[in-house]
Order: sequence, then C-alpha cells, then structure tokens
Amino acid sequence: MTDTQAAFAQIAPLLEGQAIELPSWAFGNSGTRFKVFGTAGTPRSVEEKIADAATVHRFTGLAPTVALHIPWDLVDDFGALRTFATDHGVELGTINSNTFQDDDYKFGALTHVDPKIRQKAIDHHFECIDVMNATGSRDLKIWLAEGSNYPGQADLRGRQDRLAESLATIYDRIGEEQRLVLEYKFFEPAFYHTDVPDWGTSYAQVSALGERALVCLDTGHHAPGTNIEFITMQLLRLGKLGSFDFNSRFYADDDLIVGAADPFQLFRILFEVIRGGGYGPANPESEVAFMLDQCHNVEDKIPGQIRSVLNVQEMTARALLVDRDALAAAQEAGDVLGANEVFMDAFQTDVRADLAAWREERGLPAHPMKAYAASGHQQEIEAARVGGTQLSWN
Amino acid sequence: MTDTQAAFAQIAPLLEGQAIELPSWAFGNSGTRFKVFGTAGTPRSVEEKIADAATVHRFTGLAPTVALHIPWDLVDDFGALRTFATDHGVELGTINSNTFQDDDYKFGALTHVDPKIRQKAIDHHFECIDVMNATGSRDLKIWLAEGSNYPGQADLRGRQDRLAESLATIYDRIGEEQRLVLEYKFFEPAFYHTDVPDWGTSYAQVSALGERALVCLDTGHHAPGTNIEFITMQLLRLGKLGSFDFNSRFYADDDLIVGAADPFQLFRILFEVIRGGGYGPANPESEVAFMLDQCHNVEDKIPGQIRSVLNVQEMTARALLVDRDALAAAQEAGDVLGANEVFMDAFQTDVRADLAAWREERGLPAHPMKAYAASGHQQEIEAARVGGTQLSWN
Amino acid sequence: MTDTQAAFAQIAPLLEGQAIELPSWAFGNSGTRFKVFGTAGTPRSVEEKIADAATVHRFTGLAPTVALHIPWDLVDDFGALRTFATDHGVELGTINSNTFQDDDYKFGALTHVDPKIRQKAIDHHFECIDVMNATGSRDLKIWLAEGSNYPGQADLRGRQDRLAESLATIYDRIGEEQRLVLEYKFFEPAFYHTDVPDWGTSYAQVSALGERALVCLDTGHHAPGTNIEFITMQLLRLGKLGSFDFNSRFYADDDLIVGAADPFQLFRILFEVIRGGGYGPANPESEVAFMLDQCHNVEDKIPGQIRSVLNVQEMTARALLVDRDALAAAQEAGDVLGANEVFMDAFQTDVRADLAAWREERGLPAHPMKAYAASGHQQEIEAARVGGTQLSWN
Amino acid sequence: MTDTQAAFAQIAPLLEGQAIELPSWAFGNSGTRFKVFGTAGTPRSVEEKIADAATVHRFTGLAPTVALHIPWDLVDDFGALRTFATDHGVELGTINSNTFQDDDYKFGALTHVDPKIRQKAIDHHFECIDVMNATGSRDLKIWLAEGSNYPGQADLRGRQDRLAESLATIYDRIGEEQRLVLEYKFFEPAFYHTDVPDWGTSYAQVSALGERALVCLDTGHHAPGTNIEFITMQLLRLGKLGSFDFNSRFYADDDLIVGAADPFQLFRILFEVIRGGGYGPANPESEVAFMLDQCHNVEDKIPGQIRSVLNVQEMTARALLVDRDALAAAQEAGDVLGANEVFMDAFQTDVRADLAAWREERGLPAHPMKAYAASGHQQEIEAARVGGTQLSWN
Repeated sequence: MTDTQAAFAQIAPLLEGQAIELPSWAFGNSGTRFKVFGTAGTPRSVEEKIADAATVHRFTGLAPTVALHIPWDLVDDFGALRTFATDHGVELGTINSNTFQDDDYKFGALTHVDPKIRQKAIDHHFECIDVMNATGSRDLKIWLAEGSNYPGQADLRGRQDRLAESLATIYDRIGEEQRLVLEYKFFEPAFYHTDVPDWGTSYAQVSALGERALVCLDTGHHAPGTNIEFITMQLLRLGKLGSFDFNSRFYADDDLIVGAADPFQLFRILFEVIRGGGYGPANPESEVAFMLDQCHNVEDKIPGQIRSVLNVQEMTARALLVDRDALAAAQEAGDVLGANEVFMDAFQTDVRADLAAWREERGLPAHPMKAYAASGHQQEIEAARVGGTQLSWN
Repeated sequence: MTDTQAAFAQIAPLLEGQAIELPSWAFGNSGTRFKVFGTAGTPRSVEEKIADAATVHRFTGLAPTVALHIPWDLVDDFGALRTFATDHGVELGTINSNTFQDDDYKFGALTHVDPKIRQKAIDHHFECIDVMNATGSRDLKIWLAEGSNYPGQADLRGRQDRLAESLATIYDRIGEEQRLVLEYKFFEPAFYHTDVPDWGTSYAQVSALGERALVCLDTGHHAPGTNIEFITMQLLRLGKLGSFDFNSRFYADDDLIVGAADPFQLFRILFEVIRGGGYGPANPESEVAFMLDQCHNVEDKIPGQIRSVLNVQEMTARALLVDRDALAAAQEAGDVLGANEVFMDAFQTDVRADLAAWREERGLPAHPMKAYAASGHQQEIEAARVGGTQLSWN
Repeated sequence: MTDTQAAFAQIAPLLEGQAIELPSWAFGNSGTRFKVFGTAGTPRSVEEKIADAATVHRFTGLAPTVALHIPWDLVDDFGALRTFATDHGVELGTINSNTFQDDDYKFGALTHVDPKIRQKAIDHHFECIDVMNATGSRDLKIWLAEGSNYPGQADLRGRQDRLAESLATIYDRIGEEQRLVLEYKFFEPAFYHTDVPDWGTSYAQVSALGERALVCLDTGHHAPGTNIEFITMQLLRLGKLGSFDFNSRFYADDDLIVGAADPFQLFRILFEVIRGGGYGPANPESEVAFMLDQCHNVEDKIPGQIRSVLNVQEMTARALLVDRDALAAAQEAGDVLGANEVFMDAFQTDVRADLAAWREERGLPAHPMKAYAASGHQQEIEAARVGGTQLSWN
Repeated sequence: MTDTQAAFAQIAPLLEGQAIELPSWAFGNSGTRFKVFGTAGTPRSVEEKIADAATVHRFTGLAPTVALHIPWDLVDDFGALRTFATDHGVELGTINSNTFQDDDYKFGALTHVDPKIRQKAIDHHFECIDVMNATGSRDLKIWLAEGSNYPGQADLRGRQDRLAESLATIYDRIGEEQRLVLEYKFFEPAFYHTDVPDWGTSYAQVSALGERALVCLDTGHHAPGTNIEFITMQLLRLGKLGSFDFNSRFYADDDLIVGAADPFQLFRILFEVIRGGGYGPANPESEVAFMLDQCHNVEDKIPGQIRSVLNVQEMTARALLVDRDALAAAQEAGDVLGANEVFMDAFQTDVRADLAAWREERGLPAHPMKAYAASGHQQEIEAARVGGTQLSWN
C-alpha cells in the first residue's frame, strides 16, 4: 500500500454519500445569444431529461437528485413524475423559479414598479411551492435575472425595497421543512445593475426573512479575481450558506464544466466547505446542498454531467486529504512555505486510481466516462429520440 | 458670445461631414441567451431596416450609410436594394460576414481542422465580396466568432496557421479599392480561447496580408481595465486602424449605447483619433471608418441609434475643443495637474446648446431625440408593421 | 438667466455646508513600491501637514477637517495640536489606526494567531481612542491590511472569528458619541486573501458589534466592474454606511484623484448618496462622512487636494441637478431612453461657471486652482521648508 | 513499473538540461508600498545574492544562471564577479536595466519629452551593454516602468515615437550575439497609461528593430482573464518570444511564486511552449529563456526560489506527458470531452515521486525543500550575515 493509498483509505468513508444534484436543463440544448447548436439524442420531454440524469447517477453514484425549472419542467401530474424518477433511481430535488422569460418581466418581476406584475411573479413562486409540495422538494431556489441596462433606467433603492417585500411574501408561504435559497449573480442578463449582484446583498435579503432563507453561491457569478473560497467560509460562518451551484468560467460566462477552468480553485472551495462543516458526509448536521448549474454548448450532455460530478468528487477527495494538523501547525508557526506545501500536497495527489478502486468496490464502473462511452447508451438515445422537438431553455 | 460659444465656433467646421455607419441588425430584435424581447414596429424585411437607418440619418445628419450582415441581409437583387437605400437618402456600406450560425461551424470556420469546412467559410466570404461588388461597398468586415471552450479542445497554433491561410485566400479576392477589416474580441461566444482575441493578433494577421488589410477596433471587446485609447493611438501609428465598432459595456457585454457606460472613455478615444489623424473631417486622407455595433435589448431601436450617433458627435465636439497648444505646453513642463485640467476643460464643456444651434443652421432638428418623439414616426411604424415575422439575429 | 443658471439656483443652497475631510498623509510624499518621488515643500511635521490641509480649506471652503493617522501623526500634546488646527481654521477629524507597519504584524494584527500580538493591536486601537478623546474626534477608522499571500498560509475562518473578537473588544471601548468605521479592500497588501475584502464582510462584522459600528466605502477598493453606486445604495438602505474614502483608479491602484478616472461613476455614486439620504446638507440627520483617501505620487499635493474636493463638489452639484420627478416618471413608464436622458442631462450640465459665482458670493476664490497657483503659496513653502526630513508613510 | 512511471521514463530525457534563470533581486528584501519586512540572513552584497542563487542551483540543478539588475548589482569588477559566480557553480545571465528609480525619470526615461533625459536613459543602457560584455551575458532585458497617471498628462503618441527612436539607438549598440528583450506590463507603477502595456506593443516595437529584438512575456503582467498560453503560442509562431518572466498573481500583483495561484495555467503555458518549439531540451534551436521574476515578501527567499523552480519543473514534466497523438486525434474528431480528458490526464498525473527518483539518479536531493530545511544552511546564513545593510530594491 503506497502512502497515497493509505491516506486515501483514511478519507474513503467520507466519500460515501456524497450527492450532487443535477439540473434538468443541462440535458436540453443550450448555447449563446449567437447560436444554439442542437445535438442528436437531446430530450424532447421532462421524462427524458430525468432519464438522462438517472443515467449519470447510474454511472457515478453521485447524482441521486434532479433539480427542476418551472415552467420549463411543468407537467400535469408531478406525482406521476416523482414516481417516474424514483423508478429510474433518482429523486426530484430543488425547484427553480423563472422570472426572466415572460414579456411582462422586461423591466423586472419581484422588483417591478407595477404591483400587478410583482404579484404575478409572486404567484409564480406560489405555483413553484405547490410543485414543491407535490414533488416533496425541500428547496425553492430563486435566481433573479432582474436589473437594468442604463444608469437612470431604474430606481436602485426602490427595487431593493420591493424585492424585500416580495421575498417576504413568498417566504411566508413555504412550509416548515422547506427553504428559500437566493442566488446572486454579478451581471447578466442585465448589464448595468443587477438587483442581487453579490453575496452581501443576498445575505442581507435572506437575513431579513428568517432562518429558512439562505444564500446560493454559484461559483461562476463573481467579479474577476474574487476569492470565492473566502465567501464560502464567510457564509458558512454566518450560518447562511444554503447551496452551491457548481460550474466554472474563464471570463464572464458561467456555464463551463465545474473544475474545467481552475481545478485548484475548486479544491480551495471544497476545502473551505469541509473546514466550515458544510460537507454532509463529514458533518451530518450540514444542510448545504451541492448542485451543478451549467449547460453544455459544444460538448455532449450526459458525459458532460458525468465529467462534472467526477470533478467535484475528485477535488473533494483531494480536499479531504489535506493534513489539517500539519497545516495548523505550520500556520501557527508562521511557516508560509510549509503551510502552502501541506495544502498543495493534497491538491497534487492523484486520487484517480484510488477512486476507481473505490467505485468498483461499490459496484460502480471504475471509469465512468469510459464505461459510458462503451455502453452504447449514447447511440441508443440518438437512435431512439428522433422526431419531436428537442428541449432547450423554454 | 460666451467663451464656450467662441470655442465651439472654431471647431464647428470640423463637425461637418462626420459620418457614423449604422448596422442593419440594430433595428432587429436582439437580447441575451435568456430572452429576446420583441418590440412593436420592428422591421420584417431588409428594406424596413434600411428605412429605419435612413430615419436616423434624417433626424441627425450623421448616419449616411448602413452596414449589411450576410446572410441576414441577403436579398436577390442588391442593385435594387442599393437604389432603395439611395432613394431613402442613405448608401449601403460595410459588408459583414457570418461564420457563427451554421451547424458546420460548431468547431470553427476559417480555422476549422477540416479543409472542406474552411473552404465553405472562404466561399461564404467570396459571396460577401460579390455582394460588395454589387453594393459598391468598400469594406469586408470579418468578425471571427471562433474559438474553443475547454483547454485541450483545440490546437491553438494550428488554428492560427489555418486562419492565416484562409484570410490570405480571401484577401486575394478583394478588389483594388476594397479592404479587409479584421475585428478582434476578448471572448464570447467561445469561452476558453478565441482565435482573434486582441489587437495584437489582428494586427499580426492583417500585417501578413497586405496594405488593404486592417484592424477593426470594437470598443466593447477588451479585458477589464484595458486602455482603449492607447490601442487607438498605436493602431493609427502603425497605419493599421481600419474602423471602429462603437458601443459600450460595464462588464463583459458589448452592446450598450456608445458612451452610455463611460462617456469620458469615449472622449479619450476620440481625442486619440483626432490626435492621430484618424478623424476624416480634420484629415481627409484618413480612411478610418466610424460604425456602431450595438443592439438594443430593452430600449427602442430607432431612438437608441439616434442617441448613439449623438453621443459620438457630442464627444467628438468636446475632443476637438481640447486646447492642444496649452496641453502640449503643460505636458512639456511636467505640469501634471495643469495638463489634466486642459484636457478635462474640454470634456466638461457642455456643447449641447451649440450643437443644437449648429443643427438648426443645417436644417436638422435642434433636438433629434425630441423631434423623433414628436414626429409620430414610431407610432406610424408600430401601426404599419403588423403581421409578418420580426427580424432578429437570423 | 439661462436654464442652467435657474436650475443651479435651485440647488445652490444644498451645496452650503458640504464638507470633505482631508487625510493628513496626502501632504506627505508617497509613491509605489518601486519609487517614492519627493517634492519640494513637503511637510516635515504634523503641523505642516495640518497647515497644508488648512490651505486647501482656505481656497475651497470645502475641507474643514483633517483626518489623522496613528502613529504617523502621533504628537506629545494633542490638545496643542487641536488648538493649532483651530487657529488655522480647521478641526481634527477621523483617527485612523495602523496595523501594517510593525514587524509583529507580518502575519496579522487583530486576526493574528498569537493572542499577544492581537492584544498589542487592540492596545494600539485603545491608544487611538485616547487620541480621539483628546482631539474630540468622532470616528475611529480601521483599515485592516491583513491577509495572506498563499493558499494554505492562513486559516481563513479562524482569522475571521478572531477579528470579530478583537473588534468587539475595541468597540466596547469607544464612547457613546464615537463610532467605529470598518473599511474593506479587495486586495493589497495581501495578495491571496484579505480579511475584510468586501462590503459584505464589513457589514457582517459591524452588524455584530452594534449601532455605532459602520462601514467605510473606499471608492478604489473593488473588483473590476463592481457597481459601486449599488453598494452605496445598499449600505444606506441597511443604515450602515459610515463614511466614504474618495479616490479613483483605472486598474488596481486606488490613489488617483477622485473623479479623475471615471467622473460619471462619481456622479452616479453621489446621486445614490443623495437619493438615499446620505448627503448631509440635504438631510441633516445623515451622519455619512465624506473623506478623501488618496496620495499624490507625481502631482503637486496641495493643488491635488484642491482639485479633488472641487471634483466632489462639481459632481455633487450635477447630481443635485437631476430632475427626480421627471426621472421617476420615466422610470415608471418603462421609458429606458427617457430616464437615461434625464439622468445624463444633469451629468452633462457644466456647472463650473455657476460654482465660480457661488464661491465668489461666499468670499472664496472663483477658481481655486488658479487662485492657488497665483498666490505664490507653493513657492513660499518650497522656500521655507528646507532641511529636516520630509514626511511620508512612516 | 506503473503506467505513470512508464510514461515518465519516456519524457525523463527531456527534463535534462532544463534551466531557469534566477533574479538576483529575489534574494533581497522586498514588499509592498506599505511595508517591506526584513528577514534574517538577507544578503548585504551582490556576492551574497549570487551565493544564494548558487544554493538554489545546488539543491535543484535547475538554476544555472543569475540575472543581474543594474544599478542594484553594479560592482567595480564584473570579471571578478563572473569568477565568483563560476566558483559557486553558476553563471551570470541576463542584464536588466532600471529607469524607474532616478528622480529624472519621474515623467519618463526612454520616452521622456526632454532629449537630455532620454539620452541619460540611453546611456544607462549603453552602460548595461558594457556590463553584458564584461559578464558574457546574451540578453539585455528592458522593462519600461514608464507611463502616466492622469488623462492628458502625457502625449501617448509622442512617447511611443520617442520610445521607438530610443530603442533603435540602444539596439544598434548590442553585439551580434546579444539580444534586446522588451518586457510589457499591463499597469504599475503608472496608473493611467503604460508605454508598453501589452504584447502587441512590445511586438510592434521589437519588430521595427530587427531580428535580435524580442518580447519578454512576464506571466503576471496581463489584464484579468487574459489567455496567456494563447500569447505564448502567438509569439512563438511569430518568432518573437525571447523569454519568460515567471511568477503568479491572483489579482494585480505579479510577485507570487510561479504556479502558486493557478498551477493549471502554468501547465497550459508550458504545454504551448513545448507545442511551439520553445522548450530547449526538446528543441535545441530554441532560444527562449526561462527566468523567474518574483519577490518574496513574507516567505523565506532561498526556499521560495527552490519552490518556484520545482513548480516549473513539475509542470514541465506534466506538460511533456500530454499524449499529443491522442490529443490530435480527439481534436480532429471534434471530441471535446475526449480532447479535454487527454489534456487533463497529464495535468492530473502526480509526477513528484518520479521526479524525486530522477533527481537522486543525478546526485541531487530527492526532495530539495526538505533537504534545504535539513541542511542547516538557512541557520548558517542567518548567523553569519549580521551587521551591514540588507539589500532591497535599491
């Protein structure tokens, strides 16, 4: 047994039970404002999206739940959908609302100056809560695509006050076991101001609501140079980290595979999650949810999601490998290079062979990417899913 | 006559003949990857787009030409289109190619690894040159939306070499009086690497082609913090500035009204244009073209373009007001605050009243925005343009 | 009377009493890590710095107080210093602590892992409070230059907890009429993590302390692209905006003259201050302090400060000129271009002539920059201040 | 033999002869504008700096040369210094000029408006060439710390023209076997404009000089989000990449240990170096120089440099491990995830054990960091170097 294997054996139990929720919309077509490229085998129904998510789980054991997006995933019978999911080996998870694709919301939804449009947006969230009740979902996730494009266009302060009021109305409606999770985003689709642009705003808004209102940290939603692991630490410290939306970015887009742009950053974030008690398998009291929120423009969708959850798993394993005692000792001694080396030792450890063995022990494919490629599943769905309309963001 | 009026009188002749080309696509619907909001009165045909551009010119006297985008603006008879334009008081201008909306171009066009796809993209540019010959256009503008999303996905070097070869083939085809203008863009729609991401790359590529190959500087296409007036200066110095695509941005998007995000930056850019001999009315030998390249997501399109050309005109007037002798004297004396004050004096001068008077002398509306609003034209086109399919980016 | 003059007459009363505190260190030499250029006439004593600040106030009427920096401005007898200041026409203002220039603080001060060093840093703040009691200062401003340079070097969470504890101890010591104001800064001098890097962290920390603990917003301390007026709005809304440190920057440095890099941004910030009730002359209940925090590397110091306070005054005047009723009407109507135009109308109004007249009515020089240049004062101090050691950041 | 060991054995010969030049100034004290923390054992003479560099080489075998900085490293007898270096097992390398620490250069040196100051700066470079002749150095590296802080302060165009003229005069003086290498830097110490801010400017300037004028790419000198491996590719393609200054940064500072902030980026850069024929051991015709340019503010200096060259070596090994055939096949097939996986496989391979064995075979310590710590050398120099003045940036 090598040193690495011995170290891995120590942390292996903490990999048990890791869960990363998949977004249903990852399996539909998506792209940029310039072009959406379609791909063969793309789902034509909510059920096909859930089947794809279940496929990811079958090959990885990492993705037991699927997030839905309303109205994209609206069905007549959510009870039946829940059964369909369970039959495929996954559960329905977070419900995401959508206030950015209705003409009425051109100038805002929960923040709109017109009370009728605000009420419409609130009602949409009530509908989402109804769906949650039907699906047994815990979390209502709100990403506000609201803002303005030009200085003067909007009254920043008035919108913030109206947002607080709208959120309070929605929060009142969620059940005792449910949570409201408010995502922030630096910019886009609004290009001058965004109503919830940073963690501070999300934190201030959810703190005003109550205990079951929390912040969602999307790793792709920050200004250049932002230290995201610091925010992770701070939100955990303040007891307000509800969930992660994982993805990555080089510039401003936020839809690349998590860990693809800066694997070291993902490692640092996961280290802070563990350090702060936010990693469930190490701290059963934690209720921090891990989710993906990324879309696949040019790469295949099912293997893209497999790659993504594996990246999170690999970096979680590396982060668990950090020798915390040695790290603390070096930190306390002011040994800058020593502390950094302890930290980097874990990051540079190649855990892939150990993880492959770990998977095999659990009846999972040692190499999920290769296993998926070899399974013929992609060819099957490409052949089967002919006709109908491929789903995308609508 | 106030001091400002006297100073304005000095520079007024240099405002004569200022021309800012409008993009036909500014009049269609556009938006973000999340949603395109339609607006009443949006054109359903190329002719209606040209008519709208002509309206902007009629109210401002600043926009005598319209850029076309192929295939968006493909018509059967470009001779007839040219006549239509002339009849409406404008000319057809730059021809823009499009290599980002065909499924074959998912992984590149002029850079594609497959010679057949490269040839298809080259042929598309030959078709654009045919259009130029029919429309009498001088400039073929190439914006390459090509790149990759993930490290390893593409061979950066091979693509650059293939790009050079493809461009050489296209350049060989343009006429003696025509120019190839290569735009660069920091990122989007590719999110890891872009094949022409910066002015250096565009400069190196066009320098290899020949004298009639030049760089297009789009003001919204730079990394955060980039000093755009410096690049303006440098390209003029190197004799390689072909044209401007004007627009503005706060973060990463590049489609806001020029001057809306940072009017002082627009002033500084225009100052360097004038300083470097790139401003036509002050230097008839200059062939630097001014164009808008911006789309209107939430604001009205015709007045959005009116506002834009006015912003360029106002900042041009201010930049012309800089007391160049006083500035040089302060610069030479190492008088930092004095030099800055000379510069800022011009920027802070409110030229709007003088420009209004200048317009009236020329038979133009003193206040084009107000005049357009009062004209009832918007209501007319909203009433008239019912039925059919509103145009957007396709 | 022109329209501009009439509009100015309306807002003129609100310019009365505007006060912008000057930092004593602005009058010493400063520079970059590469080189500090000295200039003739630089103060050799705290008294000379205060005299220079008083000169700025004499020429502008805008800078009635001077902020001190401990230990840079430590004197034996603060009572005498106070009298000296009063005799020169200014008052002593905010006391700034310094925990970044002692060898003990290499790895932190209020956050240090060693309780002895934390206590030393706390004691330093107690000393600052003693100074405040002697000078009659209201505000203790804390900028924490603390952080780490390498991942793993420091325990982010532990430092945050220790910071909370240290701040609580300091807060307990300030008097009923005193305030603790916590500044945040994106980065520098630490280059991996900073303990108070954003408004959210400062807000969370001061909220835990109590009512008299507030946030200081330094306009140069944000990630690229950050919407600073939004933060201004939010902190005012939350009742936690204590003060501004004004300066400007193009890239990452934060020591340029306020308004020099992006005058439109300064306008937008000041508009939100007024909108949110933070501007004292318009809302006597406001306790938001305006300060400069900028150093002059290559420009002359006294005129650099004159230029700075004038820039704030000019942009305040423009921001006051916004037609709030017309703006609200356009905003409510969803008239994007109309609302933006109302906003820009104020920004583009040249208020300099009106301000010159306004100053003359109050016995101030119409043109403070010219008046200072003509006064011979600079030559006087250059001649007088020979010998001794010019002050800088130590 | 594991797969990794077998793969490593293949590339091991290409690690032979890797050379990374050390900067003499890395061994002196450095810091930020706020504070320079001194450390025990810091050199008091040029000889002690060279001895420290030789120590790094002794423990790593990677750093056979030392770059000098004039005037910081000016000695009376460079022949003697050369002998001193050789006796310690290293050679003298690149000569760096300095035009940022003389009062005359406050407003520029090679770009200055005053011909006398320009000549002084040119003469300084002549002196550097004299040093090169005495030391046998190949490269004259010029980093221009020149620029301006305020719009209007300087005539951007005039400065660029004067720069071209000054550089031409210097270039004429270098010998047939010598090279002029021009570094670019996004900003700092100038904060509005920098005279050589980007690779395009450096490329345009050196292209005008001649074949032996090349660009230096400092990895820390770019705008946020810049794709540095793309620039590496482009400069190699254009035949104009002279050297690297390695370091890293999270925000805007550029002096962290190379590979510390984003190891994946370092991997990508080294991959492009190898791909483009710039890596000497794989392409003996390459003349691309590898250097460090980083300073150690809070970490120990000798181990800081050891860590740095090891980071470059480790990432070089990983970059060499990329299966180029498999990568090309996946790229040509448009297999995005497959190509990315080939690329990431190499990055994620832990080469440390193999490198340790490789070192031992060559008589080097398996673990240079541990070996240095165990050697007692640090304690020795701390004890020996008492008294005198520790060197820093002057």
